[in-house]
Amino acid sequence: MMFPAADYAARLDSARRVMDAHGVDALMVSVGADMPYLAGYEAPQYERLTMLVVPGDGEATLLVPRLEAPAVIDRGAFEILPWDETDDPVAIALGVAGRPATAAIGDHTWARFLLGMQAQSPTTRFVPATPLTSELRAHKDEAEIGWLRTAGHAADRVAARLVAERFSGRTEREIAAITREMIVEEGHEVAAFAIVASGPNGASPHHEPADRVIGPGDPVVLDFGGRVMGYFSDTTRDFVVGEPSAAYVAAYEVLREAQAAAVDAVRPGIAAQDIDRTAREVITAAGYGEHFIHRTGHGIGIEVHEEPYIIEGNQRILKPGMAFSVEPGIYVPGQFGMRIEDIVVVTGDGSEALNLSSRDRYTVE
Amino acid sequence: MMFPAADYAARLDSARRVMDAHGVDALMVSVGADMPYLAGYEAPQYERLTMLVVPGDGEATLLVPRLEAPAVIDRGAFEILPWDETDDPVAIALGVAGRPATAAIGDHTWARFLLGMQAQSPTTRFVPATPLTSELRAHKDEAEIGWLRTAGHAADRVAARLVAERFSGRTEREIAAITREMIVEEGHEVAAFAIVASGPNGASPHHEPADRVIGPGDPVVLDFGGRVMGYFSDTTRDFVVGEPSAAYVAAYEVLREAQAAAVDAVRPGIAAQDIDRTAREVITAAGYGEHFIHRTGHGIGIEVHEEPYIIEGNQRILKPGMAFSVEPGIYVPGQFGMRIEDIVVVTGDGSEALNLSSRDRYTVE
Repeated sequence: MMFPAADYAARLDSARRVMDAHGVDALMVSVGADMPYLAGYEAPQYERLTMLVVPGDGEATLLVPRLEAPAVIDRGAFEILPWDETDDPVAIALGVAGRPATAAIGDHTWARFLLGMQAQSPTTRFVPATPLTSELRAHKDEAEIGWLRTAGHAADRVAARLVAERFSGRTEREIAAITREMIVEEGHEVAAFAIVASGPNGASPHHEPADRVIGPGDPVVLDFGGRVMGYFSDTTRDFVVGEPSAAYVAAYEVLREAQAAAVDAVRPGIAAQDIDRTAREVITAAGYGEHFIHRTGHGIGIEVHEEPYIIEGNQRILKPGMAFSVEPGIYVPGQFGMRIEDIVVVTGDGSEALNLSSRDRYTVE
Repeated sequence: MMFPAADYAARLDSARRVMDAHGVDALMVSVGADMPYLAGYEAPQYERLTMLVVPGDGEATLLVPRLEAPAVIDRGAFEILPWDETDDPVAIALGVAGRPATAAIGDHTWARFLLGMQAQSPTTRFVPATPLTSELRAHKDEAEIGWLRTAGHAADRVAARLVAERFSGRTEREIAAITREMIVEEGHEVAAFAIVASGPNGASPHHEPADRVIGPGDPVVLDFGGRVMGYFSDTTRDFVVGEPSAAYVAAYEVLREAQAAAVDAVRPGIAAQDIDRTAREVITAAGYGEHFIHRTGHGIGIEVHEEPYIIEGNQRILKPGMAFSVEPGIYVPGQFGMRIEDIVVVTGDGSEALNLSSRDRYTVE
């Protein structure tokens, strides 16, 4: 995975400012999105520890297994410290961090390593890094918004091309494979996911594409995305083979209105939960409230789901540069499901949609 | 990802026996390979917690986000407990575990959740689950060995087909794409990885395939694998476009001998580190010791790298049913690299190779 040639020294300086505000002496991040954000390198999901250690008052160090070291790009902002096969990387990381009084640990860091650090440094107070890193990562700069926009528009072209495909007689798995190919062809470096949920399978929001053959009258939920320079696209559009049922048409009209109202509500100064409430009110007023079984959205960036979450209870105030999905859905068990998803970014006075393909249902053969 | 219809109740009983022996009151596993091993379900790498909780003296419970619940197969061995969007899954998991005195936490569980559990249950002693789960997972039964064998032989067919491909004039990325396609065509459900490291790039063991165009005389290290019913293949073979250098030929002879000696050494009753020593002695005696920069191998199963690790310092005694890679390599910076990798399984009196394709270098155009 490639990441942009950003100003990583500036990002590490921002991290130190946030650490100082939170009373944290060392920031220690491993697998997940914090490391690529801060160092332009993504740690593989393997048992050899890769860890970026940022002491509040010293140079940052990227601890990396020696055989992964050639893959690290020197960003000029941190020291690269390879460790050898029979070293104890946990001990090295703690040493580099200076046995801190308070250490903030990246979200996805494996429990194995955190427990190892806690055992070796019993006087250190370990706290989640999420409040720090999400403060940094949730505010996208122009370049980051640019990558999200490039990814979003590439996903839109996939939606437009899918209309020309024959759905009837094909399996969900086949449509998923075609979608994944298009995701790459339209400019993503990798396809990340393609949910294809047809007929009653649509009622399961995270349905895994299977061998169900799509037939006449079937609605099909397509939720797909890929990565461009580490940044994700994520969009959902609804396809119908021929004519849908009257029940589907009625529900879709409600969903279309709810999603548009929620997108319209996005502006700086309101709380994340207000967007959820806007969508939920429309759907509930129309009598489908019990069928909208998930939050309205999630932040997006180097992680496909990240802060800010658009969910009841999240009082975080939206600010310019925050990017997230607006994706209400209606799921009627045993019958059908539907979801409309756009990525939007908060601007100075409202929002910009990073997906521009039609939100009407797509009629296919 | 599909997992076999194994006897999960028996596996959970085995887990309880191991917990009892280790003085652990609750086993709590999330993302990673422990959950599919114990419950036949793999948690997605998302922020909504999925956790299998196994109390020492009660029924196991799979805590799952409600919108993922339809993807869980009821194995009849544990309760499925969906949680709703605004619930606190950490609190629910601790409640199901019965606020245990000692809880063993799965390896890959996110630090965010472990820190949450520690904050909410300060009297619980949290320990790594690795010693427990590796005791279970390192001893493969006949069915598991069967899946590893099926995957291994499928990977062998990929190696055999690659010889017919033209390498010269193609990029590493192109050869990687071809390899990934073949991995699926030959019977894996998914392609997991394909390292293609040509010419001097071969000296980086975990090289990411890039735009280097392969040319005459180039050696190319191909290390690839996929998954069959959740179990991985992982094999490395060495291809050369036409005639390699004399230095390469001399080194390859040594590597071939070292790898064969290490495979021959595999049998029950010896320590894992002895296999590493066997390979290393041959390579060191021939003067290439400094160029063999990684351990000799890793266990394999539902995780591509797992216990037992074949490394100096690992005194774990090999037993029938243990499966691991034997993959020494020689890496000469700026010139070339080479690695030969087979998966072997320990039998009653020796070992079975799960890869049968030729370990000689493959000459290609």
